[in-house]
Amino acid sequence: MIKVGFVGIGRMGSAIASRVLGGGHELLVYNRTPEKTAELAAAGASVAPSIAEACSGREVVMTMVADDGALRAVVLDEGGLRDSLPPGAIHVVMGTHGVATVRELAAAHAQAGQVLVAAPVLGRPDVAAAGKLGVVAAGPPDAVEFCRPLFDAIGRRTFDAGPVAEGATAIKLANNFLLGCAIEVMGEAYSLARAYHVEPAVLYDVMVDGLFAAPAYNVYGKIIAEEDYDNVGFTTTLGLKDANLILGAADLARVPLPSANAWKDRLLGAIAHGDGEKDWAAVALEQARASGLEP
Amino acid sequence: MIKVGFVGIGRMGSAIASRVLGGGHELLVYNRTPEKTAELAAAGASVAPSIAEACSGREVVMTMVADDGALRAVVLDEGGLRDSLPPGAIHVVMGTHGVATVRELAAAHAQAGQVLVAAPVLGRPDVAAAGKLGVVAAGPPDAVEFCRPLFDAIGRRTFDAGPVAEGATAIKLANNFLLGCAIEVMGEAYSLARAYHVEPAVLYDVMVDGLFAAPAYNVYGKIIAEEDYDNVGFTTTLGLKDANLILGAADLARVPLPSANAWKDRLLGAIAHGDGEKDWAAVALEQARASGLEP
Amino acid sequence: MIKVGFVGIGRMGSAIASRVLGGGHELLVYNRTPEKTAELAAAGASVAPSIAEACSGREVVMTMVADDGALRAVVLDEGGLRDSLPPGAIHVVMGTHGVATVRELAAAHAQAGQVLVAAPVLGRPDVAAAGKLGVVAAGPPDAVEFCRPLFDAIGRRTFDAGPVAEGATAIKLANNFLLGCAIEVMGEAYSLARAYHVEPAVLYDVMVDGLFAAPAYNVYGKIIAEEDYDNVGFTTTLGLKDANLILGAADLARVPLPSANAWKDRLLGAIAHGDGEKDWAAVALEQARASGLEP
Amino acid sequence: MIKVGFVGIGRMGSAIASRVLGGGHELLVYNRTPEKTAELAAAGASVAPSIAEACSGREVVMTMVADDGALRAVVLDEGGLRDSLPPGAIHVVMGTHGVATVRELAAAHAQAGQVLVAAPVLGRPDVAAAGKLGVVAAGPPDAVEFCRPLFDAIGRRTFDAGPVAEGATAIKLANNFLLGCAIEVMGEAYSLARAYHVEPAVLYDVMVDGLFAAPAYNVYGKIIAEEDYDNVGFTTTLGLKDANLILGAADLARVPLPSANAWKDRLLGAIAHGDGEKDWAAVALEQARASGLEP
Repeated sequence: MIKVGFVGIGRMGSAIASRVLGGGHELLVYNRTPEKTAELAAAGASVAPSIAEACSGREVVMTMVADDGALRAVVLDEGGLRDSLPPGAIHVVMGTHGVATVRELAAAHAQAGQVLVAAPVLGRPDVAAAGKLGVVAAGPPDAVEFCRPLFDAIGRRTFDAGPVAEGATAIKLANNFLLGCAIEVMGEAYSLARAYHVEPAVLYDVMVDGLFAAPAYNVYGKIIAEEDYDNVGFTTTLGLKDANLILGAADLARVPLPSANAWKDRLLGAIAHGDGEKDWAAVALEQARASGLEP
Repeated sequence: MIKVGFVGIGRMGSAIASRVLGGGHELLVYNRTPEKTAELAAAGASVAPSIAEACSGREVVMTMVADDGALRAVVLDEGGLRDSLPPGAIHVVMGTHGVATVRELAAAHAQAGQVLVAAPVLGRPDVAAAGKLGVVAAGPPDAVEFCRPLFDAIGRRTFDAGPVAEGATAIKLANNFLLGCAIEVMGEAYSLARAYHVEPAVLYDVMVDGLFAAPAYNVYGKIIAEEDYDNVGFTTTLGLKDANLILGAADLARVPLPSANAWKDRLLGAIAHGDGEKDWAAVALEQARASGLEP
Repeated sequence: MIKVGFVGIGRMGSAIASRVLGGGHELLVYNRTPEKTAELAAAGASVAPSIAEACSGREVVMTMVADDGALRAVVLDEGGLRDSLPPGAIHVVMGTHGVATVRELAAAHAQAGQVLVAAPVLGRPDVAAAGKLGVVAAGPPDAVEFCRPLFDAIGRRTFDAGPVAEGATAIKLANNFLLGCAIEVMGEAYSLARAYHVEPAVLYDVMVDGLFAAPAYNVYGKIIAEEDYDNVGFTTTLGLKDANLILGAADLARVPLPSANAWKDRLLGAIAHGDGEKDWAAVALEQARASGLEP
Repeated sequence: MIKVGFVGIGRMGSAIASRVLGGGHELLVYNRTPEKTAELAAAGASVAPSIAEACSGREVVMTMVADDGALRAVVLDEGGLRDSLPPGAIHVVMGTHGVATVRELAAAHAQAGQVLVAAPVLGRPDVAAAGKLGVVAAGPPDAVEFCRPLFDAIGRRTFDAGPVAEGATAIKLANNFLLGCAIEVMGEAYSLARAYHVEPAVLYDVMVDGLFAAPAYNVYGKIIAEEDYDNVGFTTTLGLKDANLILGAADLARVPLPSANAWKDRLLGAIAHGDGEKDWAAVALEQARASGLEP
């Protein structure tokens, strides 16, 4: 049984925290809007009135917050994790963040005698609720090992991304990059098919019947074939945020990513044309526009 | 039983022709270097001494030749298919060709009272030998229908790409484009992981365990993770040929394909650095070079 | 005085041939549509009824034809330059052609005991008429030297691009590439300015007042600032032809040109949106469209 | 005579402040390392011991600092310009900064009853010392008008970029973008020429003799032709900083800039290969590397 704090009880945080609790760990939760903690409280979690108190006596504090700005505030603001985590305690960062931010916060924790483990997750809230996430974990090996029971409670598999926390960040961003570009390339391929007057469904069938029989192509190939961009899983605007995290990581490491550029430009174009709140598969719509194939 | 001629008995042609013969059709084969027809002859095919005679009395002549130049010669040269196919006979083009060439040859056949059906295949020679190819067929519906028993003999599934032959070409090229760019994006993603000192195997595991559990990622993700570029399935130089067919099709239809450009530039760089005869996954090696991650 | 033949009396060919004649050389001209030769005939040129006769007794035959297809026909067709040029005579190719074509034709002439010199020109017909063209010449040094009086008659300056004919082609294409991409980058820069609600004229003034005080920026910066795309100097469709010659040359030499790709994609998009016959500065209009800044 | 404060007395700041003083204005200067102010003090400027005192009784405070981080600190830190500028006073931002930063600081000043004018300059320190800079000015018209005598003292010409401060930022970034991409395209063009074995000097002559007879091409075309990358005017690493400011501005305004991407990727590659402190024309060296043309 690990003494766990959890900051950030949104849809994803809630599902993960619930798995931690179900794994038999002692859970103390904090959320900026406290109503969201009610369900976890009913299930046996304690609710802390501040981040500082959510750190009190904890061995591990997990965070799942929206973006780098929120994470920096949670850690670095007065009364944040850096001020409040006990010496030797571990901050497990589960959200999708930038490499520069993870690097900065890992250093801040180290200076304060604490440890940062990056453990971004693969999967959406429903997958999290079922305990079937993938967890990509990196950080000092002892700390990662200490957290393993938590990762086991959360996910079906943990991928060990090495002893430096930002390694897990890099893998998570690489995976998102693969997905974003797969969607972009599908968008381009569908435009090619449409320009030759072939039904999109034909290309879809060829893809998922053969080399591309995988969730990324099944899900997004279908959305694009059916032009179902209003059925939103993840918005174009959030896609751009991810693309910028990826390009930021690439920039810091001096890695040119030409395919990411092509993808990012379609995201920008889609948002410029008013599709920011559509599903991020709308890059395919923007590609169609760029090809003179608008509806 | 269909009276079939077959021109182009290389590794792929031989496997396909063998399936046609096994399907109970009457087969007359021609190859520029006649030795390659011996096995089919032993299995019951007749061997024609010229393309013209391979067309004699045929309802369908199938071609599987290396490139657009060879195909144009087979059709348009004196004594070629245009001169020799009986009126109403069908030329089934099975190779991977450019849209402009297919368009030109379809018009030439139409003028000569013949029919062109494009039926490029999905899969390598071993898949062909097992009768498990995918066939993407397009052309005048009657003609496609007439050929269906042949497609059934050859493959496990036929995808109907519409009434215009070049539609099948577009789908085949779109599929190759998806594959080439998937490899390119993997190459970029692996460079990102390596730049952050994460073992390539971690990214591989994440990919194929989740969103990318598909042959394209299994096969090429492994080659790249293991830097096994000397184990050649398809060369970089042939990859460039494909990329140019794809970009040619896009050009003709006025479809910008930015991801194809990124991929093509890595193919060019790989060849410029002497990797033309390596496996076309060597775009990942070129990406590593561009990122200062050379071995 | 050199005995000169000239094939291809369009606007450009006519202006150049006129300078040759004015330089005191003996001129024999041929054009597919003979009417266009009348003016030159009146000025003292002889008119040949066929390409073969335009080669008769010539030391040099110059060609200025529209594209690679036309040039190959003029040289390789029966009765063309290869068949008809006297041994040792020089074919001066003045049009803008592809490297592969120039290479092929140089070999064909060499085999026939003739010499090909590539001498593409810099400037438009009015510049040609004034004898102020730049000439980029390459080929066997003796042959280039022999032609120098002709180049002096035609232009204000000859640039020596080395002993291999295709070197001049490469330089001419590189210059067109610089121009095309300068226009593309201007288009992008103007979109950035417009997105921040700054008058295009401000960017124009900054450019041509400082680092970019050159004809390319003066001319095209003005067209874009004033959105004067219907005042056509060179069409978008011809721009795409040039872009493909450039990318073809790059492909053959294994040189990735990422900026050319960006430019080509905007040309394609412009044509896809119906701007093929507008001035090729319409890439800036297409860029505006891609940025959601359409009028 | 205007009462002017000046923060940031580096090479550029010093040259500009000197012109202000020479224009007859009352000058109070501050620099973090006070030694750099000695020369201005000798010429008649007063030296302030803090930013706060450099704002005391000033009508205008000009800043010329290295980057966005420094500018934000100068304005927003305790005792910074926001705290210290008198009501109605004007902060003239002369450095090259990001749009987001200028926007944020303009809002901060407005809230404090002060005014921000963006007035980035065109030209290097020697040009500044000669009073020949270009000044691109934007902000509330009254404020810009009030500053005009200062701009006249500093530069030979002021470009009016409208009533919103960030408009001047956009124009300055657009100009840098044009330059960076011109260098990138030259790099690509030189690689093409070299791949065809033509002397770089030939391309240089063609460029600057004709369409590209402008400082940008004269200066950088020469550096690239002579591979003189160790003669550093502006480093590759600073070039990347600029590219990221440009792409950041484009991102914020939803403008895809494909040419900027191509340029940025070459900057990254150059830095990855150890050329970060070479002249930023080293993108041409990186392009040569990508083309297999390394020395």
